[in-house]
Amino acid sequence: MKGEEIRSTSMEYNLQSWSKQKNINPIPVEKADGIYFWDYDGNRYSDMSSQLVNMNLGFGNQKIGNAIKDQVDQFCFIGPSYGAESRATLAKKIIDLMPDNMGKVFFTNAGAESNENAVKMARMFTGKNKIFSRYRSYHGSSFGAGNLTGEPRRYALEPGVPGFIKFFDPYVYREAITFDSEESATRYYLTKLEEQIQYEGSDSIAAIVMETITGSNGILIPPKGYMPGIRALCDKYGILMICDEVMTGWCRTGKMFAFEHFDIKPDIVTFAKGVTCGYVPLGGVVVSKEIASYFDENLLSCGLTYSGHPLSCAAGVACVDYYEEADILGNVNKVGQVLGETLEEMKKNHPCVGDVRYIGLFSAIELVKDKETKEPLVPYGKDPNGVMGKIAGLLKDRKFMTYTHENMVLIAPPLIITEEQLREELMKMEEVLTIVDQELL
Amino acid sequence: MKGEEIRSTSMEYNLQSWSKQKNINPIPVEKADGIYFWDYDGNRYSDMSSQLVNMNLGFGNQKIGNAIKDQVDQFCFIGPSYGAESRATLAKKIIDLMPDNMGKVFFTNAGAESNENAVKMARMFTGKNKIFSRYRSYHGSSFGAGNLTGEPRRYALEPGVPGFIKFFDPYVYREAITFDSEESATRYYLTKLEEQIQYEGSDSIAAIVMETITGSNGILIPPKGYMPGIRALCDKYGILMICDEVMTGWCRTGKMFAFEHFDIKPDIVTFAKGVTCGYVPLGGVVVSKEIASYFDENLLSCGLTYSGHPLSCAAGVACVDYYEEADILGNVNKVGQVLGETLEEMKKNHPCVGDVRYIGLFSAIELVKDKETKEPLVPYGKDPNGVMGKIAGLLKDRKFMTYTHENMVLIAPPLIITEEQLREELMKMEEVLTIVDQELL
Repeated sequence: MKGEEIRSTSMEYNLQSWSKQKNINPIPVEKADGIYFWDYDGNRYSDMSSQLVNMNLGFGNQKIGNAIKDQVDQFCFIGPSYGAESRATLAKKIIDLMPDNMGKVFFTNAGAESNENAVKMARMFTGKNKIFSRYRSYHGSSFGAGNLTGEPRRYALEPGVPGFIKFFDPYVYREAITFDSEESATRYYLTKLEEQIQYEGSDSIAAIVMETITGSNGILIPPKGYMPGIRALCDKYGILMICDEVMTGWCRTGKMFAFEHFDIKPDIVTFAKGVTCGYVPLGGVVVSKEIASYFDENLLSCGLTYSGHPLSCAAGVACVDYYEEADILGNVNKVGQVLGETLEEMKKNHPCVGDVRYIGLFSAIELVKDKETKEPLVPYGKDPNGVMGKIAGLLKDRKFMTYTHENMVLIAPPLIITEEQLREELMKMEEVLTIVDQELL
Repeated sequence: MKGEEIRSTSMEYNLQSWSKQKNINPIPVEKADGIYFWDYDGNRYSDMSSQLVNMNLGFGNQKIGNAIKDQVDQFCFIGPSYGAESRATLAKKIIDLMPDNMGKVFFTNAGAESNENAVKMARMFTGKNKIFSRYRSYHGSSFGAGNLTGEPRRYALEPGVPGFIKFFDPYVYREAITFDSEESATRYYLTKLEEQIQYEGSDSIAAIVMETITGSNGILIPPKGYMPGIRALCDKYGILMICDEVMTGWCRTGKMFAFEHFDIKPDIVTFAKGVTCGYVPLGGVVVSKEIASYFDENLLSCGLTYSGHPLSCAAGVACVDYYEEADILGNVNKVGQVLGETLEEMKKNHPCVGDVRYIGLFSAIELVKDKETKEPLVPYGKDPNGVMGKIAGLLKDRKFMTYTHENMVLIAPPLIITEEQLREELMKMEEVLTIVDQELL
């Protein structure tokens, strides 16, 4: 097939995620390398969101590719009840990267399933039912993960699963109150959460599930003391702390896992995306030694055909090794500084930029109609005039490929991006922000 | 790593599906070919369940392996909103294999997610809420798929998702009534189902979800006229008919899809497993043209990072081609006849065999304490003395690898098995049934 045939065949036979199908117009991709990919007409595009924040190492990583090929030659698959070298090796590597309280890994196919299984395990282990998660969050779109999700993609799953409770994120920029310090913001959010825990019945709550740093919903970085405060509330009430590291894990934020920024030890960590960079689907749930040993004597009532898929795990082993060998964290922290500085400049210079939030190579630009009132460029959950689509289109015209969410543009390039490449790409963003200032406010 | 290290590392770091972890003892697998695999001590095992009824083409299929390697060289991944040749090609191939009412494919990672998304689409399309499925069924173990599931693996997901209703399977062998014909059984089951539809409120039911032929719960083959009768009830009440072909699809039952045995056209078909034989995780939802066109104008509120994963789809293209090129259906129907005849002999000769059920290379032996009373060898949902585990162990001693479910042993070998190989393996089953007759009744 050539480009046009791929495009038309896709439009005729594939249903595309999160879309009205009449609106889809897929760019047919012929080849890809590093942070770039090309269509069949030779146009080069820059991947400024690591696709769906999964391709941390970009396209065409030879080490991962060769590991996949070698595993094909051994065997592609053996059932989860057998021993496979890649499965055992990857589980051990992951535990070695975790805090010393963590014990075992349950592998899944991807992030949503990881969160599904984390909730099941938390309920089994605690014998309690309620699960807390936050409004501005995305944890997947299957029934369990989608009920954890707080944003509108949850609505398709309602009436919801009983026992899933939402609380407010520490979204300081848009809070109804102005805080005099990060600490006072933290005090406010933790007090409200503890109040909610009491109203819901502290004895009935199995877990609090959070993206360690909220991802697609706007890179919401918790204020100082917030995460240790959550840990303390969990300890006080016997609630498990589950960190969803599907986006934030695997070097994205400048640490191997984002919870390391906050000096806390979660009880359960979910991961996916960066563990293989999506070269082969893989996700997983890491549980504490205490939870792991509970399942020595009690049935783990979780399972899926491809748990610990050998081909996925082979890709995972190569990928995790590469993060360390290539000092990816070093690059994230170096280039991430340029990202942060440039975003701060944009905030200073552009009326349309209400806020910028960034950590490592994980960032968002929040667009507003008015910097003073903070009125969002588009209202929550709606974009009747397609303004955000227009902005994505302006970026796409410049071959800067990313996605938008609500009134925000995400920038989360592959972690191998050089400083020079990043500066070149951010010039395009600069141009587009100028157009937004002039034409779309 | 060598065998013992893989075993011990797995036991230390991997959580294994559906198990008390103290009981696991994974055989480390070194290599695999066709219907066989080997441990690190050179022992050869015969795969008589196609792992989890997914390896329809057995191990080491070169065509699939090469397709994976070629895709690695192009790119492993590109996001679902782009055009990828393998994704478009596979969707078209699948629609070409479907009845003429079917329109588009939404790809997922595996079977559970396929069923999750089928339910979401059915609710969106119909605007109705309730979903019917059957007690003796397994559709996955995430919250949505697990609430479709009727058997005990559902319990870990309770309290359940609102609107999921169970009805009885056409399990003629264990029915409280004796029927004088298949037609009278069908009349009974359809009448009871229609009564239940009326009690639940026919206007509130979005879909009836069924494994076309119930799989792990005992290869329950619907009596004559049952499936067309379900189709007629769906048409009468405006209910969508969803066939879960995760196990039964891709030649397993002697047709490309099991619904072809019954001369019906479903509205939605879910698939996984055999589409790639599990070489790379892949599943999907096929929807009718009518449903597909609804989503032209209405948001498809479904999505996942790896929808239409290019590496998975490349494996799928090669696999689907292979079914046709190698005339796998021809082999299934030829060798399946030997399977059926041998199982009937076993039923005749062994006091412990209450019933045998088979279609294509998909079969179960149902074990009883007493042929007359039909008392199951172990009570439903329990096996306090580990009798079924002992039987699996006796088979494993003979290197006949399969799994048991309740009082049943599944036999579902790779579809490439020869008549000679099958006869050799069934001799082992014969030996074990003799031991069961003598020692375990």
